[in-house]
Amino acid sequence: MTDLSAPPFSSRHIGPSESEQQRMLEAVGFESVADLVAVAVPEAIRAKDKLKLPAAIGEAEAIAELRALAGRNRVLTSMIGLGYYDTVTPGVIRRNVLENPGWYTAYTPYQPEISQGRLEALLNFQTVVSDLTGLPVAGASLLDEGTAAAEAMTLARRAGKSKSDVFVVDADALPQTKAVLATRAEPLGITLVEHDLDGDLPECFGLLVQYPGASGRLRDFRAVAAAAHEAGALVVAAADLLALTLVAAPGELGADIAVGSSQRFGVPFGFGGPHAAYMSVREGLQRQLPGRLVGVSVDADGDPAYRLALQTREQHIRREKATSNICTAQVLLAVIASMYAVYHGPDGLRGIAHRVHRYATALAEGLRGAGVEVVHGEFFDTVLARVPGRAAAVVAAAAEQGVNLWQVDDDHVSIACDEKTGAAEVAKVWAAFGVSGVEADPENAPDALPSALLRETPYLTHPVFHSHRSETAMLRYLRRLQDKDIALDRSMIPLGSCTMKLNATTEMEPITWPEFAAIHPYAPAEQTEGYRELIGTLEGWLAEVTGYDAVSIQPNAGSQGEFAGLLAIRAYHRANGQGERDVCLIPSSAHGTNAASAVMAGMRVVVVACDDDGNVDLADLDAKIEKHRDALAAIMVTYPSTHGVYEETITEVCAKVHDAGGQVYVDGANLNALVGLAKPGEFGADVSHLNLHKTFCIPHGGGGPGVGPVAVRAHLAAYLPGHPLHDGTPVGPVAAAPYGSAGILPISWAYVRMMGADGLTAATEQAILSANYLARRLAPHYPVLYTGRGGLVAHECIVDLRQITKETGVTVDDVAKRLIDYGFHAPTMSFPVAGTLMIEPTESEDLGELDRFVDAMIAIRGEIAKVASGEYDKTDNPLRNAPHTAEAVTADEWPHPYSRSEAAYPLPSLREGKYWVPVRRIDQAYGDRNLVCSCPPLEAYED
Amino acid sequence: MTDLSAPPFSSRHIGPSESEQQRMLEAVGFESVADLVAVAVPEAIRAKDKLKLPAAIGEAEAIAELRALAGRNRVLTSMIGLGYYDTVTPGVIRRNVLENPGWYTAYTPYQPEISQGRLEALLNFQTVVSDLTGLPVAGASLLDEGTAAAEAMTLARRAGKSKSDVFVVDADALPQTKAVLATRAEPLGITLVEHDLDGDLPECFGLLVQYPGASGRLRDFRAVAAAAHEAGALVVAAADLLALTLVAAPGELGADIAVGSSQRFGVPFGFGGPHAAYMSVREGLQRQLPGRLVGVSVDADGDPAYRLALQTREQHIRREKATSNICTAQVLLAVIASMYAVYHGPDGLRGIAHRVHRYATALAEGLRGAGVEVVHGEFFDTVLARVPGRAAAVVAAAAEQGVNLWQVDDDHVSIACDEKTGAAEVAKVWAAFGVSGVEADPENAPDALPSALLRETPYLTHPVFHSHRSETAMLRYLRRLQDKDIALDRSMIPLGSCTMKLNATTEMEPITWPEFAAIHPYAPAEQTEGYRELIGTLEGWLAEVTGYDAVSIQPNAGSQGEFAGLLAIRAYHRANGQGERDVCLIPSSAHGTNAASAVMAGMRVVVVACDDDGNVDLADLDAKIEKHRDALAAIMVTYPSTHGVYEETITEVCAKVHDAGGQVYVDGANLNALVGLAKPGEFGADVSHLNLHKTFCIPHGGGGPGVGPVAVRAHLAAYLPGHPLHDGTPVGPVAAAPYGSAGILPISWAYVRMMGADGLTAATEQAILSANYLARRLAPHYPVLYTGRGGLVAHECIVDLRQITKETGVTVDDVAKRLIDYGFHAPTMSFPVAGTLMIEPTESEDLGELDRFVDAMIAIRGEIAKVASGEYDKTDNPLRNAPHTAEAVTADEWPHPYSRSEAAYPLPSLREGKYWVPVRRIDQAYGDRNLVCSCPPLEAYED
Repeated sequence: MTDLSAPPFSSRHIGPSESEQQRMLEAVGFESVADLVAVAVPEAIRAKDKLKLPAAIGEAEAIAELRALAGRNRVLTSMIGLGYYDTVTPGVIRRNVLENPGWYTAYTPYQPEISQGRLEALLNFQTVVSDLTGLPVAGASLLDEGTAAAEAMTLARRAGKSKSDVFVVDADALPQTKAVLATRAEPLGITLVEHDLDGDLPECFGLLVQYPGASGRLRDFRAVAAAAHEAGALVVAAADLLALTLVAAPGELGADIAVGSSQRFGVPFGFGGPHAAYMSVREGLQRQLPGRLVGVSVDADGDPAYRLALQTREQHIRREKATSNICTAQVLLAVIASMYAVYHGPDGLRGIAHRVHRYATALAEGLRGAGVEVVHGEFFDTVLARVPGRAAAVVAAAAEQGVNLWQVDDDHVSIACDEKTGAAEVAKVWAAFGVSGVEADPENAPDALPSALLRETPYLTHPVFHSHRSETAMLRYLRRLQDKDIALDRSMIPLGSCTMKLNATTEMEPITWPEFAAIHPYAPAEQTEGYRELIGTLEGWLAEVTGYDAVSIQPNAGSQGEFAGLLAIRAYHRANGQGERDVCLIPSSAHGTNAASAVMAGMRVVVVACDDDGNVDLADLDAKIEKHRDALAAIMVTYPSTHGVYEETITEVCAKVHDAGGQVYVDGANLNALVGLAKPGEFGADVSHLNLHKTFCIPHGGGGPGVGPVAVRAHLAAYLPGHPLHDGTPVGPVAAAPYGSAGILPISWAYVRMMGADGLTAATEQAILSANYLARRLAPHYPVLYTGRGGLVAHECIVDLRQITKETGVTVDDVAKRLIDYGFHAPTMSFPVAGTLMIEPTESEDLGELDRFVDAMIAIRGEIAKVASGEYDKTDNPLRNAPHTAEAVTADEWPHPYSRSEAAYPLPSLREGKYWVPVRRIDQAYGDRNLVCSCPPLEAYED
Repeated sequence: MTDLSAPPFSSRHIGPSESEQQRMLEAVGFESVADLVAVAVPEAIRAKDKLKLPAAIGEAEAIAELRALAGRNRVLTSMIGLGYYDTVTPGVIRRNVLENPGWYTAYTPYQPEISQGRLEALLNFQTVVSDLTGLPVAGASLLDEGTAAAEAMTLARRAGKSKSDVFVVDADALPQTKAVLATRAEPLGITLVEHDLDGDLPECFGLLVQYPGASGRLRDFRAVAAAAHEAGALVVAAADLLALTLVAAPGELGADIAVGSSQRFGVPFGFGGPHAAYMSVREGLQRQLPGRLVGVSVDADGDPAYRLALQTREQHIRREKATSNICTAQVLLAVIASMYAVYHGPDGLRGIAHRVHRYATALAEGLRGAGVEVVHGEFFDTVLARVPGRAAAVVAAAAEQGVNLWQVDDDHVSIACDEKTGAAEVAKVWAAFGVSGVEADPENAPDALPSALLRETPYLTHPVFHSHRSETAMLRYLRRLQDKDIALDRSMIPLGSCTMKLNATTEMEPITWPEFAAIHPYAPAEQTEGYRELIGTLEGWLAEVTGYDAVSIQPNAGSQGEFAGLLAIRAYHRANGQGERDVCLIPSSAHGTNAASAVMAGMRVVVVACDDDGNVDLADLDAKIEKHRDALAAIMVTYPSTHGVYEETITEVCAKVHDAGGQVYVDGANLNALVGLAKPGEFGADVSHLNLHKTFCIPHGGGGPGVGPVAVRAHLAAYLPGHPLHDGTPVGPVAAAPYGSAGILPISWAYVRMMGADGLTAATEQAILSANYLARRLAPHYPVLYTGRGGLVAHECIVDLRQITKETGVTVDDVAKRLIDYGFHAPTMSFPVAGTLMIEPTESEDLGELDRFVDAMIAIRGEIAKVASGEYDKTDNPLRNAPHTAEAVTADEWPHPYSRSEAAYPLPSLREGKYWVPVRRIDQAYGDRNLVCSCPPLEAYED
């Protein structure tokens, strides 16, 4: 009998071959992976059984199953609106961004020198937002419009002068925005008041205006904004970017903050997400802006260069002082939206908006002409029709015609026009209303924009929005930007805690199929059977993998999963009459997001000390529990720890907290070290969030999208996030869309389906082996911090440069930047310990690449030694001057005491496929002192 | 009334905006494009009417229409075989090669320095073929197996010692191979004899063995090969590459030449093509090899570098001495096939073959067990079943099950297994035969390979076939190779006569949809309605554009279209009782392919002189017509001429030839200068071929695929290429598949559909304007050759360096290589006139890019001036040393008298996105003297 089975997908996902694995085991000193794991992973946490998952299938079979699921979604014309509008993704952008690993496998641009391409794209995004909203500072994307509104609410509270606890919400705001605001307001003690904005404004610290309103109504909010300002409140406008090409900018009407979605700038529905939300603020609020902000600075040659600005605002720096837990952005989607604007330019966008508007007015005319009442006379794209008692019938008739409308209530139907609306769609809508014999005449239809609101200020005047109008030019612009960056398609990205593993093509392909991409989040259930089955199945698999009883995939970032998990704990305590429990214990080694999420969930953060090995200090834990016993709500721990160690005491920690009546939150950021080997839900935790964009192969997209499902044990299941679309649930939504970033869930579904229990477990084992292999090879050259049993690490290792820095002056920054010259993205810098580098190889890197990285690190160690010995100058050396651009190394004058070839080709292997960094080391402080957050004029680039 | 129309697709396809166009017109001295065209294009040839084509539609609408057409193709499991087998294209290869413009928009690697990536891929392809066939020299792909077999036949004739005119064909050869051989043999006076290879071999100059046979039979052809050699004949084996991983190589069995298809190495069916065919030959025949051959040479630093070898063999050099008209290869498909081998490696390929074989034997076992006669006991993947009188019923029953089988005749059905065959497919086949109650047991099925034929020699031992097994490693290998090359996604490729225009994403996307990609060429007609409608429509549009009455899209390269056109002329004369007409007049300026095609069509080539302006010399034409009046078959002219000029006398030339009883062939290579303005079928021609890969947006793919439809007036329509699958036609097929490279026709369909009459015409006009703009800007710096009326050129212009070379020693080669340092692919070198550069900008380049190119050319002219003035050394200057690698410019020693920055950044604009060439100038002669045509051992790369 011969084995005829094809190599499993896992053999493509896992980098090292069997023989390579054997060589790595030898280096680490074990006979088998099982032996290694037996020592590395504490017995106490080991899962009792193999994962119960369906047997792995091949790539072609997985595609076939996904096609079958896709076939059970029905793509109708969507005119539902409510914040989601159909749009045309230009083919050149879909193929060369959304379907190009050069863009989607990139990491967050924390290393700006190797991220100039996506930083430029994000700066374009900021410019689009800033120009259109008329507010000078825009960030580089938020998770969705609902959470952006919530962030604006908290920004208004901390930045405003009012002492009120009231936040006023436009009654005509999007329903999901209202719901997310409610979820976020309650734990913070904010009272939400809905208001039609016509009467007197209640006392409040802030006000949100939907512009245009959810009902389509477009109105001038200048008066109410003035009233709010008068009362010391800040004004938030939730505005539609496309409408803003025709109507006055929020900033012109008095908004202090604008938020909204950029979805309709070329980003598919995806059943609700991912899409990039935006926020922009007036001068003076920029330091309050949550999330990422791209700014212009200069490099070591004084040339302009981009990087993330004002990072000291961010949650990972501010810890418990943070007021937002935002971490992930929606970079890939923001890039698409920005490129949509680059491709169409201001005239093209205006043309699209004008067409959308005129079809809407033509539609309204036809309805009116047939005696159907059109509720609002002034609108942009959405027509609200009053059909007493007939709304359901009209919506059903439209669906028969292949068009989804929105039934507001028994008497009202709303119809949203979009970029794809034409005469055929309008005719179908009319037919559903029983209107016939009319023909759409959008060219001659009157406008329905209030004349006082017509836009008069210019936008997108920067050349980048005027230079790439042909497809050829657009294609080259995308290629040029992509070529500036390092993504996974070039080399290993050994980022500790970030798990940059393979994002397989087979996992990625389905997300751009129309049956997954073109479904509105509020499409009727009978049209989304495939999606809902896929989501249900995936939630079940994730529950099995984590050992929990219930999972919600709604949170669209790890931070939101955390927040949802803590909300569940909070709701549970309240339901048990223990609402006074509000203390959240957090070890000092925790990721900053933990503390920020706890604060958002209305908890008080109490820090627990860690010992010198980075483990939770049990004595201090006991003391803190004792002190806060009656108020103890929860402990949040990361496992394996942020130091990359399997703490032996985890079960003990869990037991202590449980004994005191607290709940245990295990941060699943490092789940890649557990899958198949241990289950948090089994070894003592009550809640975890996962990162599908780390452990389950959703690509990082240059800094988003992420998906952060929350998983809970049965007693917490009732408190998972709800949604206004669904039946009443005790906890509200943490994201705007009912299923969060549903559009990318096929990626994780495919990953689990193709790996099966054995593949997933093998991946974890290889990740552990690879980390230990790196640790073993690097140890003679750099001290390795924090090892656990047997001197082993988990799935990542930390190399300590503090002593080296002290002795030589060479810093982690120098090493990180010098790695660029060697063609690598740096490991995680100074997290969790300042002065160290945390390296996570993942299972996807083969031995050749691991060795190439080690060779680079060893060569750099040799360079450091030359600094120490005086062979290299203390300050003018290849480390301090790194990275070296081609321009620098080919300059006619070479002013350095080391040679050009030492600068550019320190290893012979670099002569094949050398990556040339586009800028020299960037001056972070300069950019923060001189904040520029939209496209600079071209003169800035002149010498 | 407002214009609400969206910008048409043509505004994306055509590079310059309206305002840019205006600036270009000013530079050329015209008020409008109409004025320019009125002067440039002779009135006599201008089309009377606007093109009658359906109104242009947008990209989204075109995709919708293509989806509707695709929906009318039905994808069944194909077990038809006959040279086409289903296969899995690894996702990482589909997305990053077939769907990546970095690969598909590249040009033929005539400029090897900027083509190292695809040349390496092609060398891998040659290594795969050479290793598997056991013959040392393999070329870099032929058009299809049928034409490869025909090329092998003519190779055998010219290389063999036998004086016989007989070529023996295995009776068990593929039907399409027999048909193409017949088409090609007849005009050359070769007699084809079919033979079962069991009895005595007739006297012959060559012999073709199908290995395994079309019926599936696998047999040892050693004896018949020996007999053939004895008689001085050469042996051609048409072999299946996958089978060769298990059975003895043709070279080991005595074949002198091997041919076949690499389709099943990951290339989709595409309803028949495009796929890369291969040919390999034994030592001593390499200079006879038709088509392209990649070889290893060295660059100016002595480092290994790839380039096309032995180009002096090729038709464009040999003209009427050529014996093959092969020009286009199937590079993109050869790259995919080679990467399939890189991805699977020898073990993986063997595993696939083993699985295919075992499912075939299990299938046969099941049939036999149920009393169905299996005709052959020894086979690889194809089972021939005898079911007297039941064959049609079995095939119908299988189709009911969703499986296509092949009905050989009333009594026989053949079933071909492939990579996708599993137990489910075998069960369906059995069910169709009425076999039930059996279960496939391929693990334990006995082999059906003759023991004497088991493969014992190793293959794919080179490290490249062992190093990229994980998807991550594969992805990076593809990226690394892509990054070495210049394709259209980086910069303009201003190749005269090659029309490197936009290949729009919307045009490209449909070709990888399963409904177009996964259709076997012999699928039943009722399953291919969508394809056939698309083809019929496209043929109709092409007829309208060219002014002819009938079009065949079968020819899968321009050269094959030419050949088909000449065959039609030949058949027409014979049908009219004028079989003696065999003289083909060809102007001395013609592309070499013309003469080669004429020879292949059994014609005698008579050259007509050209005057100093490159126009046909009418006096000489008269003389030649007079001399050959009774034998005159045809004239072949290119229009506009190969010199890029609209010859005024074209109508006169046509009339003269017609008067003498000849037919007029207009080579459509330059149709990009005519579409919408003039129609060859109207201004006097009888036949043309077109190049869909030039004028109609099929990408060049790095040197193929091409599509070369032949268009004829009504009197020749009956003589268009036929196919054995269709009813008897007077002329046989020129390609293996009935519709040639059907799989890529959606590209041209989409182009015409989205451009419409106005868009196509505007594209032509812009192409003419752009060429004249370049000519006007370059004229002060370089003499521009061959202008027509008003000093205008057509769609390309020739700059003359001969005087410059004489004065300064700087050659066209120097300028071409120096352009690489400026980031450009060189224009066409020394064609049609030695010592010149022919530049074709196409309509897709915007003004910015045209100016960037002109700036580079002017800067180079300045460098030449410095050579002339002595400021630069005569031999050690930036021109002669071009191109400059990063390694050279960053070297510690800089031995040149000019500066590093002059070498690397001669223009400031190069500091943004500089392209770094991976090798220095390549020594062509060295590589031909030291021929290495498969992957060299790694030591070759050591310093």
